Amino acid sequence: MSAGKIRLYVEHPLGEGQTLGLSRDQAHYLFGVMRRKLGEVVTLFNGRDGAWAAEVVEAGKRGGVLAVQAQTAPQRDPPDLWLCFAPIKKARTDFIVEKATEMGAARIQPVQTAFTNAERIRRDRLQAHAVEAAEQCGGTFVPPVADLTSLDALLRDWPADRRLMFCDEALASDDAQQAGPGVSAPSCSEGAAGAPWAILIGPEGGFSDAERARLRAMPQAETVQLGPRILRADTAAVAALALWQQRLGDWR
Amino acid sequence: MSAGKIRLYVEHPLGEGQTLGLSRDQAHYLFGVMRRKLGEVVTLFNGRDGAWAAEVVEAGKRGGVLAVQAQTAPQRDPPDLWLCFAPIKKARTDFIVEKATEMGAARIQPVQTAFTNAERIRRDRLQAHAVEAAEQCGGTFVPPVADLTSLDALLRDWPADRRLMFCDEALASDDAQQAGPGVSAPSCSEGAAGAPWAILIGPEGGFSDAERARLRAMPQAETVQLGPRILRADTAAVAALALWQQRLGDWR
Repeated sequence: MSAGKIRLYVEHPLGEGQTLGLSRDQAHYLFGVMRRKLGEVVTLFNGRDGAWAAEVVEAGKRGGVLAVQAQTAPQRDPPDLWLCFAPIKKARTDFIVEKATEMGAARIQPVQTAFTNAERIRRDRLQAHAVEAAEQCGGTFVPPVADLTSLDALLRDWPADRRLMFCDEALASDDAQQAGPGVSAPSCSEGAAGAPWAILIGPEGGFSDAERARLRAMPQAETVQLGPRILRADTAAVAALALWQQRLGDWR
Repeated sequence: MSAGKIRLYVEHPLGEGQTLGLSRDQAHYLFGVMRRKLGEVVTLFNGRDGAWAAEVVEAGKRGGVLAVQAQTAPQRDPPDLWLCFAPIKKARTDFIVEKATEMGAARIQPVQTAFTNAERIRRDRLQAHAVEAAEQCGGTFVPPVADLTSLDALLRDWPADRRLMFCDEALASDDAQQAGPGVSAPSCSEGAAGAPWAILIGPEGGFSDAERARLRAMPQAETVQLGPRILRADTAAVAALALWQQRLGDWR
């Protein structure tokens, strides 16, 4: 990996001629793990100012200083898409956050549903996963991970103008044809590009009948089916994000 | 989980009135882990005969007997789609096999490329992951996991009639526009539904220039771009499978 390929998320504003100090963790990563040396160049981003080349001007075991040189990529924000999902087992929840970041979600919203086992999440740990995924995928944006909220509260305050792609795993069966009206192919309506959207992925046990009825009744909601097999929640999240990005997002 | 919801893959032929003996592992899972009892019903499939209800007629610590009753779902094979991918770190390779099964690949082909670190795979372990994913996702088909082969050998014998969706991560950047002709949107050509297809996902380091040139020159190949961020291989596999299934496969 060449020096410039190391990408580091920082909170500091980025601009030509700025210098910034490294935390102990960042210094350990850059100098201990990645073996960067004085004079070498890394890439910095802060989620707002694009990507910047920065030179190592001080390197120590407990800290260091970088001098910001020039912008190497403009800031690029993802489309206004939330990924709402019910937390599952630890490793798979981490994966969903990582994948949502790579796939270009603008906000990650953990949701407690009737069949969700998780009572709480470690928001700070999930946020760190989003940072790491952004460093890895070459993006300049880090989606905020919101606090766990109940589906009830989320839907009560649902914005009138935000459409909702509701992935109903109950449709993944041979009786999907009897699902009734309002169920669309996995592609959501065109003509809605540029509008605020959200994707909602249920827990392993799916949604309760009451939740499903409430979601179907929302004028903003569009029920979609992700094929004839039942997908795990982490698989469903990536699949739904891919279909959305291709149809309405920044993969077009 | 109700009794009938337990799904077990067996190698035995399935038909009305058949009985079949359980291996020690299967008995441990059914009676020890899942606490099934005499007279309860589970679902069996063997990848060929659809899904069948079967009653527990003997249950022991080291074995048991099931009596096959009636077919509950017809055999449903996925479209003729191979997923070819370069093995990566162990956990992520397991994930790719799991996801390919859920998403409906017909064959899983690990490929050694110029930048692939893995020298070998545990084919039997990956196959077991595919079985477990099929049990989980409600499918009746288990994709075979092939032995690791070199990209060179794979392409040398590439079938003339099998189209290849080549996911080139080098296009995931701001200079993607300069990628040249032959690069399509992430959706592959329509009008090719029903034809044999394959998806090829590269390793973390992408493809070498020589590999890329060779792939681009194949008449069967279609180069696609999966958005502006660089996806990890396991993310790319799910995203590519979703786009393909929606456009050409059994999600239509």
